[in-house]
Amino acid sequence: MKNSVVIKIGVVGATGYTGVELLRLLAMHPNAKVLAITSRTEVGRRVDDLFPNLRGHYDQSFIDPNSDQLNNCDVVFFATPHGVAQEAAPAMLRKGIKVIDLSADFRLRDPASWAQWYGQAHGCPELLNKAVYGLPEINRQEIKNADLVACPGCYPTSVLLGFKPLLESKLVNLDDLIANTASGVSGAGREAKIENLLAETSDSFKAYSVAGHRHLPEIKQGLEDIAGEPVKLTFVPHLLPIIRGIHSTLYATLKVKGVDIQKIYEDCFRGEPFVDVLPAGSHPQTRTVKGTNKCRISVFCPGGGDKVVVLVVEDNLVKGASGQAIQNMNILFGLPESTALESPALLP
Amino acid sequence: MKNSVVIKIGVVGATGYTGVELLRLLAMHPNAKVLAITSRTEVGRRVDDLFPNLRGHYDQSFIDPNSDQLNNCDVVFFATPHGVAQEAAPAMLRKGIKVIDLSADFRLRDPASWAQWYGQAHGCPELLNKAVYGLPEINRQEIKNADLVACPGCYPTSVLLGFKPLLESKLVNLDDLIANTASGVSGAGREAKIENLLAETSDSFKAYSVAGHRHLPEIKQGLEDIAGEPVKLTFVPHLLPIIRGIHSTLYATLKVKGVDIQKIYEDCFRGEPFVDVLPAGSHPQTRTVKGTNKCRISVFCPGGGDKVVVLVVEDNLVKGASGQAIQNMNILFGLPESTALESPALLP
Amino acid sequence: MKNSVVIKIGVVGATGYTGVELLRLLAMHPNAKVLAITSRTEVGRRVDDLFPNLRGHYDQSFIDPNSDQLNNCDVVFFATPHGVAQEAAPAMLRKGIKVIDLSADFRLRDPASWAQWYGQAHGCPELLNKAVYGLPEINRQEIKNADLVACPGCYPTSVLLGFKPLLESKLVNLDDLIANTASGVSGAGREAKIENLLAETSDSFKAYSVAGHRHLPEIKQGLEDIAGEPVKLTFVPHLLPIIRGIHSTLYATLKVKGVDIQKIYEDCFRGEPFVDVLPAGSHPQTRTVKGTNKCRISVFCPGGGDKVVVLVVEDNLVKGASGQAIQNMNILFGLPESTALESPALLP
Amino acid sequence: MKNSVVIKIGVVGATGYTGVELLRLLAMHPNAKVLAITSRTEVGRRVDDLFPNLRGHYDQSFIDPNSDQLNNCDVVFFATPHGVAQEAAPAMLRKGIKVIDLSADFRLRDPASWAQWYGQAHGCPELLNKAVYGLPEINRQEIKNADLVACPGCYPTSVLLGFKPLLESKLVNLDDLIANTASGVSGAGREAKIENLLAETSDSFKAYSVAGHRHLPEIKQGLEDIAGEPVKLTFVPHLLPIIRGIHSTLYATLKVKGVDIQKIYEDCFRGEPFVDVLPAGSHPQTRTVKGTNKCRISVFCPGGGDKVVVLVVEDNLVKGASGQAIQNMNILFGLPESTALESPALLP
Repeated sequence: MKNSVVIKIGVVGATGYTGVELLRLLAMHPNAKVLAITSRTEVGRRVDDLFPNLRGHYDQSFIDPNSDQLNNCDVVFFATPHGVAQEAAPAMLRKGIKVIDLSADFRLRDPASWAQWYGQAHGCPELLNKAVYGLPEINRQEIKNADLVACPGCYPTSVLLGFKPLLESKLVNLDDLIANTASGVSGAGREAKIENLLAETSDSFKAYSVAGHRHLPEIKQGLEDIAGEPVKLTFVPHLLPIIRGIHSTLYATLKVKGVDIQKIYEDCFRGEPFVDVLPAGSHPQTRTVKGTNKCRISVFCPGGGDKVVVLVVEDNLVKGASGQAIQNMNILFGLPESTALESPALLP
Repeated sequence: MKNSVVIKIGVVGATGYTGVELLRLLAMHPNAKVLAITSRTEVGRRVDDLFPNLRGHYDQSFIDPNSDQLNNCDVVFFATPHGVAQEAAPAMLRKGIKVIDLSADFRLRDPASWAQWYGQAHGCPELLNKAVYGLPEINRQEIKNADLVACPGCYPTSVLLGFKPLLESKLVNLDDLIANTASGVSGAGREAKIENLLAETSDSFKAYSVAGHRHLPEIKQGLEDIAGEPVKLTFVPHLLPIIRGIHSTLYATLKVKGVDIQKIYEDCFRGEPFVDVLPAGSHPQTRTVKGTNKCRISVFCPGGGDKVVVLVVEDNLVKGASGQAIQNMNILFGLPESTALESPALLP
Repeated sequence: MKNSVVIKIGVVGATGYTGVELLRLLAMHPNAKVLAITSRTEVGRRVDDLFPNLRGHYDQSFIDPNSDQLNNCDVVFFATPHGVAQEAAPAMLRKGIKVIDLSADFRLRDPASWAQWYGQAHGCPELLNKAVYGLPEINRQEIKNADLVACPGCYPTSVLLGFKPLLESKLVNLDDLIANTASGVSGAGREAKIENLLAETSDSFKAYSVAGHRHLPEIKQGLEDIAGEPVKLTFVPHLLPIIRGIHSTLYATLKVKGVDIQKIYEDCFRGEPFVDVLPAGSHPQTRTVKGTNKCRISVFCPGGGDKVVVLVVEDNLVKGASGQAIQNMNILFGLPESTALESPALLP
Repeated sequence: MKNSVVIKIGVVGATGYTGVELLRLLAMHPNAKVLAITSRTEVGRRVDDLFPNLRGHYDQSFIDPNSDQLNNCDVVFFATPHGVAQEAAPAMLRKGIKVIDLSADFRLRDPASWAQWYGQAHGCPELLNKAVYGLPEINRQEIKNADLVACPGCYPTSVLLGFKPLLESKLVNLDDLIANTASGVSGAGREAKIENLLAETSDSFKAYSVAGHRHLPEIKQGLEDIAGEPVKLTFVPHLLPIIRGIHSTLYATLKVKGVDIQKIYEDCFRGEPFVDVLPAGSHPQTRTVKGTNKCRISVFCPGGGDKVVVLVVEDNLVKGASGQAIQNMNILFGLPESTALESPALLP
């Protein structure tokens, strides 16, 4: 019986926001046993001292990432900055440990592109083609048998899910896609930066990295995988004065008129546990997915014109990171895909 | 086996914030079956249309509060403004339905005091002494056998728990207690009021009702129940520009010196599933209890003087309302007290 | 000497956010004497009781909008919902009083379009062609001699200024303009609505009115005035969890390559006191214009492609409403255009 | 004529929040000419590149703090961390340059206490008794002739002003004063610290430094100066999820009954340009003083008991720092005390 499965888990780099979110979700997972929680900087500190929300849930301390304890795990999550997983993953994989990487290390298949956007040569380019891009709504079958899952970036998850029905149905021009996106500040990570202080970011709004953002090649690769041909995308991220949440407003130009776009979206995602197409005319709010693995989508053709406007919301730390990582783990280990991912969002 | 129990539940007045919070928590409760969700104003509207966070969890619509469906329930929660439960509860109780009231209707034992603070005569004063004040950390035994539970107010919960060890141990003067409290705006309810607009409340802070607040007599009654003698309390509430969270800063004067206050607090709450005394020197943050039924407490004697400072945090909608209501339900029906109340808080 | 001019001023409907913002700015205007502050609902209440930030600046109470006192004014501002100015303005104009309307009553030249979007027939369509659209960066000369100024909407101000250089230089296609905009909640006015409570809007983000928004026909009219030919525009507004600030992200397709877009923007707005083109590569933040009449603009061609991305920020209550109204007044009365509009923004 | 005075000004350490706030206020000061803006870390960078709100107001770059340019100033403001002014001020004073220090260097008269709370020996203890504590409502005469002004801390300003009428009138016990205070995060400065990220502080609230805070000895010294005898104070600061604003809730015990406390407060502050005693029953809000030099105060005796509750709000960066520094400069140079400090607060 599936419910008796115990998965031994390691979390590498658990001092960041995707790390604590993994631990929060795993605390309620009936099949998860978190053996090892590592950090380079906090070795010996109780996990619940750094993250008091976990008091009563984890009675352990951060250990060194080189600890043997990781070798006893069935699966290791990397919640690290880019560059770390590509160093450590190969040895783990050789030992038969599954690796689910939340960083950018294995998302791009082209090592040259990776090197260009991340400013360093890739440490194990031979794994790039073996890694499975962990977006279950697109790659569910491949994930089942993967050894190494590259979890999508937060923006790419929302943009790819939002464009998927339009690209699959060949309804739109591929040369003028626009993704106007906005993320809460937790997307910038738990790092000491002046620009992310409350005094700098609250009660304000701005675009950033308009000239080029690291998620652009990832999104483009994903869109082209769906479309089967080259696409042109303009991608403009913005910084929201909220903690969690991504809202993507997507624009595309219809090649044909008179299509029932609402139905196309509903058909595309029917049965998906974590993609919720809202009733026609609704506008999704980021707060309705806060803390959950849901992605909610609305679609409009304003004024009956040829522009489609798609609205997508997700929690950047859940469906955009740690929740999706656990969804991938559930698939990998043959568990019901929604295990530990079913709680409704807090509202208000 | 307890896990097979099914409790048939009605929620009266489910369009407010304590209502939706009850529904959110009950959605994950293995023994809960929500039969009836009522509203005077939203009859016929899908519950998940009003509260999109519940999409996928409730496939039903608001029904009239006079519906017979309530009579099929084992327990009915009132998440209504004051005045409603006192009208409807007596008939339900006569039918053997348990009533858990989240409003202020049955919190005060003295009908004159109730009339004074709520501006109307009480509708069924004969029930005031039969109602059990639903603060499990004080009245757990009485709750087990109660028919009518009066859930404490949000401020009273935090102030009573915070002062409990000091009063029980007879360590402080009873004539100069101070409760300096602050609440997020969800405490003001889901009501259309200019003063609670984001444009009015965010990026600001204020005290309110300093001359007198309806929770004052409730807190005073509770403190005197614990102390067994009269107390004098100064109670000053403030409005925080956050959604959820209460922070109470309590001041009392020690009658004796050299007491290990930290130990007194730890001893008092040892074994309590929802009261967490933090390590000495810690400061609780409201975000560490957001969405949870936890109350976290720290205690200080600054400068080694005779003033004790107690810091208490809770989520006003959970431990201060709907979570505590479910904790009461669990006790009433013999379930493990923490059922459906164990998830860690979101952080960040 | 200009500094000795005294302008007698009336403000109709001063209980809203554009009203209090007018009063705040006029309090520091050396030539302004506010004779009459009207309200239908607050007659007799001290202005500084409703708006405590004005304590020490206004020693007067709200008077009835039918008061004779308005007839002693040189200029009357309407800070009212739509429908009010069109009733009251004609009589004032006949008495030689200048009217500066902050509402939507005189923005559209086509009464049929007005009726369609505002759901009622226009009360004095004969004035629609006499009203001057009060966007000084486009209509400065006409404003000088106007009797009736229709102040632009908040979104239209940012979108028109942002697209102006592109349309004037004939560099972009006119059939696929996109304005992806976001506004702080003060744009929704000082009205008791559940959807604008802090508990509903903070820590969240959403698009709204995607199917059609009242500012769409106004923006379209303005763009076509600049372009001299029809345009097609997709306009998607979003609600920001901040008090003040509009951020518009504009997209257009270049017809030619190799243009120095930065220079075109700098040339277009050279000498404009309230439009600030940022250095290439900068991203404007709404907080840098909070409380000021400035509009800050950046322009990008990401990846050297054919899409132009224009970023525009303004304070919706200042350049998007009351500040622009005073800028218009300064022009009308021959004062230096920046009078009372020069303070830097608060930062942080 | 006073209006023709030109004061040559240097600002040392202008990259922090009190620095940019000084520059914002001085930009509108008719007698101020800012000659030198220094920084150790940003030499050569345009001031308006770091602080875009100042674009159009300052056409200069940060210079080295050792630059000769400071020697040409009539007055130098230190907007630096503690330890800096005590090194640099003596030489400036010898050259006849007035020094207004916003840091903690000259606030305490007792060098031993300074060393205890700031963790280092004081660099020029001989100046501690020559420095004038720059709280004009208490020391206006001394400030007029000062060479070195020590601007009060943000919390001390609000607590001292709030208790002043009670202490001067000898109405309250001096052995159980309580100051329960709360500050916006700008009080923590423009420093890269994880704990002040938006993702850590927004939607939350906490007390901090309850065991002891550096402002405690400063407040105690100030209270004892007013009272003329020793006082006992419990001081508990809290962190508000807002940018600017301090709210102090003060508690004291009346020695006598039947006093008209409201009148005592109004009498005490009559004629003070920056202290505004609100009408009885009002509650001050921090937003009503945002960006202004005002301190607004309310006073209550809840339930007619013997506890006085005083509510005080100020903007920590203005009356709590840079505005008060300019108020001191105005006094020092014989200008009208309110020069450049008269704008109303933004609301909303």
